[in-house]
Amino acid sequence: MLGIAGDSAAGKTTLTKGLVEALGSDRITAICVDDYHRYDRVERKGLPFTPLHPSCNYIEVMEQHLQLLALGQPILKPVYNHQQGTLDRPVLVEPREFVIAEGLLPLHSRLARACFDVTVYLDPPEAIRRDWKIARDTGKRGYTPEQVIEELGRREPESAAYIRPQRASADIVVRFSPIEERGETLADPLSAYVLLRPTIGHPDLASVLSDDTRRAMHLKLMRDEDGKPVDALHCHAYAERALTTQVEEAIWRELRTDDPLPGGLGQLNGNGQRSDPLAIVQLLLLFHLFAARGRTAPDPAVAGLPG
Amino acid sequence: MLGIAGDSAAGKTTLTKGLVEALGSDRITAICVDDYHRYDRVERKGLPFTPLHPSCNYIEVMEQHLQLLALGQPILKPVYNHQQGTLDRPVLVEPREFVIAEGLLPLHSRLARACFDVTVYLDPPEAIRRDWKIARDTGKRGYTPEQVIEELGRREPESAAYIRPQRASADIVVRFSPIEERGETLADPLSAYVLLRPTIGHPDLASVLSDDTRRAMHLKLMRDEDGKPVDALHCHAYAERALTTQVEEAIWRELRTDDPLPGGLGQLNGNGQRSDPLAIVQLLLLFHLFAARGRTAPDPAVAGLPG
Repeated sequence: MLGIAGDSAAGKTTLTKGLVEALGSDRITAICVDDYHRYDRVERKGLPFTPLHPSCNYIEVMEQHLQLLALGQPILKPVYNHQQGTLDRPVLVEPREFVIAEGLLPLHSRLARACFDVTVYLDPPEAIRRDWKIARDTGKRGYTPEQVIEELGRREPESAAYIRPQRASADIVVRFSPIEERGETLADPLSAYVLLRPTIGHPDLASVLSDDTRRAMHLKLMRDEDGKPVDALHCHAYAERALTTQVEEAIWRELRTDDPLPGGLGQLNGNGQRSDPLAIVQLLLLFHLFAARGRTAPDPAVAGLPG
Repeated sequence: MLGIAGDSAAGKTTLTKGLVEALGSDRITAICVDDYHRYDRVERKGLPFTPLHPSCNYIEVMEQHLQLLALGQPILKPVYNHQQGTLDRPVLVEPREFVIAEGLLPLHSRLARACFDVTVYLDPPEAIRRDWKIARDTGKRGYTPEQVIEELGRREPESAAYIRPQRASADIVVRFSPIEERGETLADPLSAYVLLRPTIGHPDLASVLSDDTRRAMHLKLMRDEDGKPVDALHCHAYAERALTTQVEEAIWRELRTDDPLPGGLGQLNGNGQRSDPLAIVQLLLLFHLFAARGRTAPDPAVAGLPG
């Protein structure tokens, strides 16, 4: 079970969608934990907080449901209708082989975090996230740019208080962004900066990548903002395809699985383009999902042997 | 935690309402498990079963929620809107000191039954239940008598297959009805026939009542339909008030509690009248709720003593 946290318009849906498409919805269940909103849009108008605030969400029920999904049980998930701003009839969700829970606060509480085998925090530069949010909310959700900018301001204190602290709890922190030093903009293919925390076992990429040999993609031992040691994987969008393939194969090889390396990763929303850095991030997450399955399900090859 | 099962219009709401009013909604939480309907009224039109069928209900989710309530955790309960026939936004339900779950199928599965400290099946004579259902559904729910009668016919096979079998799992089976041998009708105060199964420990009424000494109210060892031994408590509506009071006090005495005997029991819906047999049934159920609380909560007087 994978948890993906991040602020509004941080790219959670794009990342999740690619994983669901790679495995197929018969193998993976994805839920959005923003459905656990306690109030509809009308009720929220009179309240002193935004949907980012834990008090605006049924956090305890979200925790219950994550636990139930982790145990393989179905849940009756509430539904927040983003178009209408209403709370609609709940839907039955049955966990498949793999489960993703993405949203604003999936890593907010210890009980929720304990349900996941791997956790991710999406951490785009704030200026880029603003652009993404304005583009999405003026498009799909019918707001004016001024309304979105005002809402971003209103949400900022709660982003700082409740959303961004989740970064510290994630096993993997992902930042997609243009490389400023190269003068890139959002119109250029995005690179990925991926922090791999030693809270879980990551695939060994040191044999394929090192900071000495590879400039377009490298793995570097460094200290995070808080001083803790972390491996930083930099995937520059301009890296040659052959290197990307080599890294993908190295990741998958470590699984020692008969499952083939999933195809079709790295698809960007709508425009049919592929992002190599996105594909590598998705493959890393699939690595962890498959590895967790291997730990919980008995290996059929040895299940019949005496212990 | 108390489970009350019974067919449509068997009297579940009247019984439950009295218990909630006796203890106050700050001490007792009552939910109706018919809210776990899987389909709304429109969707059901095309389906080969009625709301009585387990497949028409989220039984697994009901089981989960009963377990969570039994553990003292809140649930996000689905809501079936009886007026509109729609599935509406769910509501948060937080368990108080006592919990009642009443409805069509609370005792359907072993997992659900395991959540209750005491279970009741309401078993009115079928002719009386029909009259009650016609009166209610033509009044509150806007149907014609013909529609209600047709629906009763449509539901009969599923009543027989899924509702009535729950009678065998209940600790207490209650039948409110007029005494035919006395020529009574539904217009007369109803008597109660209460089967007390040895599946749980009932208060000792033998010291107050026996089949020899009391004709208006008596306790009788007998065999149930299935041949199993059972105590049958007959509370005739014409029993004198003093005897009723004596029985109520005997029930409450056995709890050895400082809580006073709850007042206001036996209220009938709307008309302001009191039913002594209903009051005794409600008190029996309160006895079991308080006794279960005594088993799970440490006695403050002995909690500090060494074991």
